[in-house]
Amino acid sequence: VVEGPQGVRELLRHAPDSVRDVYLTAPAAERYVELVEAAEGSGAALRECTEEVLTAMTDTPHPQGVLAVATPVDVPLTEALDGVVASGGFVVVLAHVRDPGNAGTVIRGADAFGASAVLVSDASVDVYNPKVVRSTVGSLFHLPVVRGVPGDDLLQGCRAAGFRLLAADGRGGTMLPEADLAAPHAWVMGNEAWGLPDELLDQCDDVVAVPIVRAESLNLAMAATVCLHASAQSQDYRVTR
Amino acid sequence: VVEGPQGVRELLRHAPDSVRDVYLTAPAAERYVELVEAAEGSGAALRECTEEVLTAMTDTPHPQGVLAVATPVDVPLTEALDGVVASGGFVVVLAHVRDPGNAGTVIRGADAFGASAVLVSDASVDVYNPKVVRSTVGSLFHLPVVRGVPGDDLLQGCRAAGFRLLAADGRGGTMLPEADLAAPHAWVMGNEAWGLPDELLDQCDDVVAVPIVRAESLNLAMAATVCLHASAQSQDYRVTR
Repeated sequence: VVEGPQGVRELLRHAPDSVRDVYLTAPAAERYVELVEAAEGSGAALRECTEEVLTAMTDTPHPQGVLAVATPVDVPLTEALDGVVASGGFVVVLAHVRDPGNAGTVIRGADAFGASAVLVSDASVDVYNPKVVRSTVGSLFHLPVVRGVPGDDLLQGCRAAGFRLLAADGRGGTMLPEADLAAPHAWVMGNEAWGLPDELLDQCDDVVAVPIVRAESLNLAMAATVCLHASAQSQDYRVTR
Repeated sequence: VVEGPQGVRELLRHAPDSVRDVYLTAPAAERYVELVEAAEGSGAALRECTEEVLTAMTDTPHPQGVLAVATPVDVPLTEALDGVVASGGFVVVLAHVRDPGNAGTVIRGADAFGASAVLVSDASVDVYNPKVVRSTVGSLFHLPVVRGVPGDDLLQGCRAAGFRLLAADGRGGTMLPEADLAAPHAWVMGNEAWGLPDELLDQCDDVVAVPIVRAESLNLAMAATVCLHASAQSQDYRVTR
């Protein structure tokens, strides 16, 4: 379920074949004419309904009159990684990330800062959870997202493809400004509270911390945002794939 | 109202005189002995209660058995800015920031990245809103926070103190890597949806955007986190005040 005009617009633009139904209230159908046209073009069923019906279909109080139901587009790991190392890109691995808002923010950051793919382990929140979809604001449809694969397999796949594995962890010995971000790399993000399990941490080539001056720590979304921005900056903000 | 062991610990450490009451459940009193001692040392009234009472006092389902009631510590603007320019520091201005989670995250980032003060305009969310307090995880008590002052007065105060005023705005003409962060500066953050009003934007010396590769935009908390990290990095992560 994708809610709100911006999310539905991005869905129809980037994954039109996946859209099954688009629900609109009468005022929304009048306001978002381009959405109605895009929905018709995609072959999705267009359904007008009341705001009460929309609200009952979702857990948001204000769905802005637009909602789409789509079939998840699952990308195999090898396909998501194909060509990324050759183009000098980077990817993001979410292992044991449980909070939908955090997962959504990391996916939004991965999109904004030009990551080539997001790989979500089977122990993480489902990225098609409506709360994740909402907090990505359409970013979920901008780049390949792999899901449901064990974290161990994700890391082995990245290593086999030629990525350096960088764990993002506040206890890391390498400070972000000193991290090698020039080579193709995979950022590995762990659980909000307890980080990465040892068996994944041990596979990483480096453990990188965002330096902080005061405060106990950053939250996962903040640390990930800073790390992903650093990757983009190290590549002069170019699109790698 | 400050909830949870970490927030209450920071409160008792950094603003013990402001604490009026500390409420604990019996299991929490047993688990957080150091909190009980700190509360006794602060002169606050220590009250044991059931979890039901705690839950009724707050809007969180899991207050972890600890909650404190404190009197807000209001810092005057001149006091918050005193000496910051001389020490080469930077501050953060929140103008029209309405979402408690965003305000809390920016305060947490300001703390983590060594800002000398946070100045919150009267048109922004109240920083003593329990949701803001919760999302700062104690950072609210680590640095001076000014509140209730009109945005215009905050900018004039910063200018008079000698800060460069940098608006953070995705539409800005200066990209973050090119922004001058060596001189003392004030980051000015606007509303989540519509940014800064023209009358504040026009007073800024520069409008700075975080470069993005794809995606529509970053959210306020993400953009602020990246900007504040850049300020910290430009100062070699030193504490300026």
